[in-house]
Amino acid sequence: MSDLLWPGDDRAGDVFTDAAVLTAMVRAEAAWLDALVRHDVAPAGARDDLTGLIGADDVPAVAAGAEAGGNPLIPLLKLLRDRLQARNPVAAQWLHKGLTSQDVIDTGLVLCLRDAAARIRDDLAAQTAALVRLADGHRETPMPGRTLTQYAVPITFGLKAATWLTGTLDARDRLAAAAALPAQIGGAAGSLAAPVALAGSPIVVHDLIETAAATLGLPVRDPWHTARAPLTGFADALVTCTDAWGRIANDVLVGARPEIHELSEGPVAGRGGSSAMPNKQNPVLSILIRRAALAAPFLAATVHAGAAAAVDERPDGGWHVEWSTLRTLARRTVTAGSQTAELLAGLQVETAWMTANLAAARPGIDAEQRSITPGAASGDPYPGATDRIIDAALARAAETPP
Amino acid sequence: MSDLLWPGDDRAGDVFTDAAVLTAMVRAEAAWLDALVRHDVAPAGARDDLTGLIGADDVPAVAAGAEAGGNPLIPLLKLLRDRLQARNPVAAQWLHKGLTSQDVIDTGLVLCLRDAAARIRDDLAAQTAALVRLADGHRETPMPGRTLTQYAVPITFGLKAATWLTGTLDARDRLAAAAALPAQIGGAAGSLAAPVALAGSPIVVHDLIETAAATLGLPVRDPWHTARAPLTGFADALVTCTDAWGRIANDVLVGARPEIHELSEGPVAGRGGSSAMPNKQNPVLSILIRRAALAAPFLAATVHAGAAAAVDERPDGGWHVEWSTLRTLARRTVTAGSQTAELLAGLQVETAWMTANLAAARPGIDAEQRSITPGAASGDPYPGATDRIIDAALARAAETPP
Amino acid sequence: MSDLLWPGDDRAGDVFTDAAVLTAMVRAEAAWLDALVRHDVAPAGARDDLTGLIGADDVPAVAAGAEAGGNPLIPLLKLLRDRLQARNPVAAQWLHKGLTSQDVIDTGLVLCLRDAAARIRDDLAAQTAALVRLADGHRETPMPGRTLTQYAVPITFGLKAATWLTGTLDARDRLAAAAALPAQIGGAAGSLAAPVALAGSPIVVHDLIETAAATLGLPVRDPWHTARAPLTGFADALVTCTDAWGRIANDVLVGARPEIHELSEGPVAGRGGSSAMPNKQNPVLSILIRRAALAAPFLAATVHAGAAAAVDERPDGGWHVEWSTLRTLARRTVTAGSQTAELLAGLQVETAWMTANLAAARPGIDAEQRSITPGAASGDPYPGATDRIIDAALARAAETPP
Amino acid sequence: MSDLLWPGDDRAGDVFTDAAVLTAMVRAEAAWLDALVRHDVAPAGARDDLTGLIGADDVPAVAAGAEAGGNPLIPLLKLLRDRLQARNPVAAQWLHKGLTSQDVIDTGLVLCLRDAAARIRDDLAAQTAALVRLADGHRETPMPGRTLTQYAVPITFGLKAATWLTGTLDARDRLAAAAALPAQIGGAAGSLAAPVALAGSPIVVHDLIETAAATLGLPVRDPWHTARAPLTGFADALVTCTDAWGRIANDVLVGARPEIHELSEGPVAGRGGSSAMPNKQNPVLSILIRRAALAAPFLAATVHAGAAAAVDERPDGGWHVEWSTLRTLARRTVTAGSQTAELLAGLQVETAWMTANLAAARPGIDAEQRSITPGAASGDPYPGATDRIIDAALARAAETPP
Repeated sequence: MSDLLWPGDDRAGDVFTDAAVLTAMVRAEAAWLDALVRHDVAPAGARDDLTGLIGADDVPAVAAGAEAGGNPLIPLLKLLRDRLQARNPVAAQWLHKGLTSQDVIDTGLVLCLRDAAARIRDDLAAQTAALVRLADGHRETPMPGRTLTQYAVPITFGLKAATWLTGTLDARDRLAAAAALPAQIGGAAGSLAAPVALAGSPIVVHDLIETAAATLGLPVRDPWHTARAPLTGFADALVTCTDAWGRIANDVLVGARPEIHELSEGPVAGRGGSSAMPNKQNPVLSILIRRAALAAPFLAATVHAGAAAAVDERPDGGWHVEWSTLRTLARRTVTAGSQTAELLAGLQVETAWMTANLAAARPGIDAEQRSITPGAASGDPYPGATDRIIDAALARAAETPP
Repeated sequence: MSDLLWPGDDRAGDVFTDAAVLTAMVRAEAAWLDALVRHDVAPAGARDDLTGLIGADDVPAVAAGAEAGGNPLIPLLKLLRDRLQARNPVAAQWLHKGLTSQDVIDTGLVLCLRDAAARIRDDLAAQTAALVRLADGHRETPMPGRTLTQYAVPITFGLKAATWLTGTLDARDRLAAAAALPAQIGGAAGSLAAPVALAGSPIVVHDLIETAAATLGLPVRDPWHTARAPLTGFADALVTCTDAWGRIANDVLVGARPEIHELSEGPVAGRGGSSAMPNKQNPVLSILIRRAALAAPFLAATVHAGAAAAVDERPDGGWHVEWSTLRTLARRTVTAGSQTAELLAGLQVETAWMTANLAAARPGIDAEQRSITPGAASGDPYPGATDRIIDAALARAAETPP
Repeated sequence: MSDLLWPGDDRAGDVFTDAAVLTAMVRAEAAWLDALVRHDVAPAGARDDLTGLIGADDVPAVAAGAEAGGNPLIPLLKLLRDRLQARNPVAAQWLHKGLTSQDVIDTGLVLCLRDAAARIRDDLAAQTAALVRLADGHRETPMPGRTLTQYAVPITFGLKAATWLTGTLDARDRLAAAAALPAQIGGAAGSLAAPVALAGSPIVVHDLIETAAATLGLPVRDPWHTARAPLTGFADALVTCTDAWGRIANDVLVGARPEIHELSEGPVAGRGGSSAMPNKQNPVLSILIRRAALAAPFLAATVHAGAAAAVDERPDGGWHVEWSTLRTLARRTVTAGSQTAELLAGLQVETAWMTANLAAARPGIDAEQRSITPGAASGDPYPGATDRIIDAALARAAETPP
Repeated sequence: MSDLLWPGDDRAGDVFTDAAVLTAMVRAEAAWLDALVRHDVAPAGARDDLTGLIGADDVPAVAAGAEAGGNPLIPLLKLLRDRLQARNPVAAQWLHKGLTSQDVIDTGLVLCLRDAAARIRDDLAAQTAALVRLADGHRETPMPGRTLTQYAVPITFGLKAATWLTGTLDARDRLAAAAALPAQIGGAAGSLAAPVALAGSPIVVHDLIETAAATLGLPVRDPWHTARAPLTGFADALVTCTDAWGRIANDVLVGARPEIHELSEGPVAGRGGSSAMPNKQNPVLSILIRRAALAAPFLAATVHAGAAAAVDERPDGGWHVEWSTLRTLARRTVTAGSQTAELLAGLQVETAWMTANLAAARPGIDAEQRSITPGAASGDPYPGATDRIIDAALARAAETPP
């Protein structure tokens, strides 16, 4: 699975593909079935890990069958049951007992989002490493500081890299705070009525849930069918990532303009060419990252709109709008994270151009300094707290996110 | 291609799939090559309709190659050229001459959007037919009118259907006004410099463009690489459709609540079931239509955000964000249009419940009438201009959109 | 009324202020009352044009009273009736008869939007005039064409101005198509039941509506309480304007970068300064226009979200979300339109820098030309269809919008 | 200041009005001036708390002057300096020294947002108290559970209230995590160059910042001119609030439908009336809350779009779009929070109707129970883990947010 119209999408690989979603839903069913057996709610004969029953080949049939019940779990479940019937009819009978579609779909989404978060976390770490190198290595690389597009005061490229780093660390911390998405097990209307009826007591059901969630490696949370802050928070964290990366890409796109020439994407064979102009070397990664940053706010907002439309014990559309939206947002964020890591690892810093641009900006760019230190000569140091700011950013980079 | 996480997506079939996009881009290249030959810019030996060179099997490779140049046309073009080289080296040499990637991609998008528009137009016509039937047939079917969720005054279901019809006709007219998307042929920076250099004069280039556009059945327009109103207008029209359908779905979802019981989706074997509750008959189509209406405004707004980010002669991200966004919006609108047509064709109108609800709403619901006509008895006619309003809507439905 | 946090907002002056909204709602009530009298539904003694009864001083009280009934018309009506009672009790009795709050509020919004449209139309005309001048006058002013931030092929500034003009004309035409917003007169549930009960026949009510609408200078339309395409279409047209202006501002912001230096905002005493840096001359208008273009898609999308949430005969929130959103969008578009007109009127075109940048871009920027015309010398003309494209844009500018 | 077109806006009172923004910016300037004096950077004679220099009457002039420099701080500063000159020329000379406009505006916004957060926090606490009462008091109040609009299984209203509570507590915790917005002090390009030049060392400047921030009661953070996660996180938290409240309002709007009749807004004299229908009692608070929840995702997304557009050391529009957007989002959230607190405090729970609806839903609604416990009689308890879920929510409500 790869989106021809979202170049770079293949970087997201198997994350949150249709096949991955099927697998995740089967894992959710298997964890629950296993818990039922382990806690003696279902007989030992119901033990079955569902391995091999469903594969990527089943995607088209399940997708085609999803409309009738309004979700993909219903046809998936039918397929699972039919195939399980032959090898383990007791398991077939106990499969999904006590659950509702939303339990399995939400838990499946959570598993897919967790995979996306792991990928993004790795790329944030790679970005952080590259930015630490840039901020530390260019503490004293002078360049013009620009505000509202115009020359402001001299800065160093290390300071700029430290501000990029700050945004990246903010994204890292936001994602860390949002990433522990819980399993969803609530039953038809969030009361756990069916599980309790099956298991005989709420206490046993609590154990069932803990066991199933532990199998999946997910935190436990009381039913959240209509309390969607876990998902909106995750979506918000993803946009916080693309915001930070978009801000970096914007600077690279300005710096890569030939008249400015301070930054360029590292040359990669075959990248950045044009279909008509042999001279072109386009800053492709930055363009594609910027693209992701333009789109992401709308996707996270869609997840919020779905949350705000929740009604009844399980909603009539507000839930359904989340699924594909979250997938698109997650895959695009994984893609942009990988692109940003590569961009930063290969970024070419043209210190000679920075120096030349700064020289050309003088004496205007020294006006503030002269207004404070009337005797300052053009080119006298004006570093401010650059070193301290960079050190603080590096120190934060070295911390484990809270 | 079918989105497991957007149930009903298979209704959109081949519209705007990755394979359809490849085909559309090849058609754009073929039309241009053909025009070059016909106007003697390229030699007769360059004639080749490119048939069979590219197929759905090429999607993965082209998708994987799209990142390097930032768009899918570059790897597609390489593939086309390589394969053409063997059978027609002259054509291989003339292929794409004078064009830029954006010319081919924009024209390819336009061809795919046109296919989507055709599907939507058909479904709007089917909806219109069903609504005409409902509005006309239920002119005198009394029911409570509701405003701000509360009983207001008595209306008839025919009046309600006429307001649904009005929204549908507004969508029809908006789509008709936006659907004539033009071909894009501008060359590297929108000056048509390369085509003119090849053809020798702007006049011949104008002829080339007219010929290529005519082959594709598209209107001609001067280069619009950074003037994206054709695409934003199309996106706006699609949202106007989902707005109208969402509004209908909302009414069906209220009417389908068991306590109200005035409307229900026609029974279809296997539809509307639950994974856990044998009693459930969910209004699945309405739920999925409502879902589409929740998401669509964000997608069209993304297209606008891309348009507003345009810069230079061809943009650095604002263009790239359009592609997948337009595809998602188009496929979802096709899907929702088909679902709405089916919903309306099968809609069950429970006139007995309407009558009963109206009776239960009395005498409160008659308060306005009594305040105007103090002597009115409960149940006295209070039709207003219902007949005239319905007649006007039916008359408009019978018109060809402007 | 002026938004401290939206610099330039005072350009919108009285358009759609709270006071203007009050006035517009009173005009709607007055037009209806007048129609009732003119068609002998109300007695001659009910004639009253409501002049002077309500003023800007009433805004706080009406605003404070708006929550209780969920809209500002209810407290306004009470105030009107109370004051009218003294001077014309018959008018007080007939005031608002047959209408519902939404009739008056929608019609009031429409009147305010029409005022906004008039202002925008004037500024679009001024922009068009300036762009015609720039496109025509700089047909042969050479500069580097840039795509994806990099040098592409040489163009002229006249060509660039023609693409700006194209976007502006698209906006003009879209606004022209959307601007004829209708009056809203539907009664409690859109059946016109109360007006018909008062007037005795649907025919008379049709006359009443025509009269009232004519007084207001608005087209007639059957009740559109829940069919909101007129408003979403208007909002879409406004975003089409800010898209076009944002695209221009983006180019000016790039061109105003000191290393590029091709464009600058005309110097205006006191504009563009900094609170700390005496050297700064910020391209303030472009920054503020770009700001408007960033925000507008979200506002129009909110109007669509409201339309898609319509339900029943009058909605429970989807309607209410439109009001302030439309006002903000309208005032910001008026402001940005005025700023863009001023920006274009005063734009400084630095032809020497354009020439110098083009020279510096050589020979790379000539690569496409050389690949087509191997013998071309650097600097040989490569105009493409620039003249024809500019002529076509100028011709379109001279047309009256459809 | 009150928005006529956003009924209820006056609940937000003085929060984030134009006058409040002016006051907040003056406080930021005063805190910095005070720090300069306290740390002997400025002479003792520069001490001045700026009291009384600026008032609400200055809003129009500052607003009108804001466009020229692109922000309201520049004209405010000029006014301050002019007035200070007379009483304290030394202070006038030291005012704003070392700061840039963005420092003062960002810090001013932060102070206003903090005021909004305090209001929202109080209303969340009031909501929590009401919801604890509803969840605890209605543990055993039976009602139909509904999913996808249809009857699912029996639940209790206490369980539903517990899910509302969960969303509210999620919002509380999210706001607590986001609310500690830092002061902004960075100087012209975020290097603190001017402060260091004035103070002589980065260490003193760090002390200056700590002192100024402490005066304002704000956390310290290194310059975040282009790393906007603090603001986007705050905006996300506000939407998390409106999501939770919208979800409650949706349930009340369904429950208030006359056919369902399970919930109603407490009667308040004069509230909920109609301009035409004496019978109406509209659920006004819920409608207005729902309206806020429809709009909020778009506003927070705008703040993200601004953050993602950051470029250079201080941005060219991405920053400017935040100000009014944050204000609107903050005031609307304060308003909706207050409305929700009032809604919950006065909510009427119609237990008899809940019982009757549940009875009417039988036997269908018992189908799941019968499928698990074949011998169950209709009406046999089917509580699931309701008590435990409610207890857990109550326990969480009693905790201090993390």
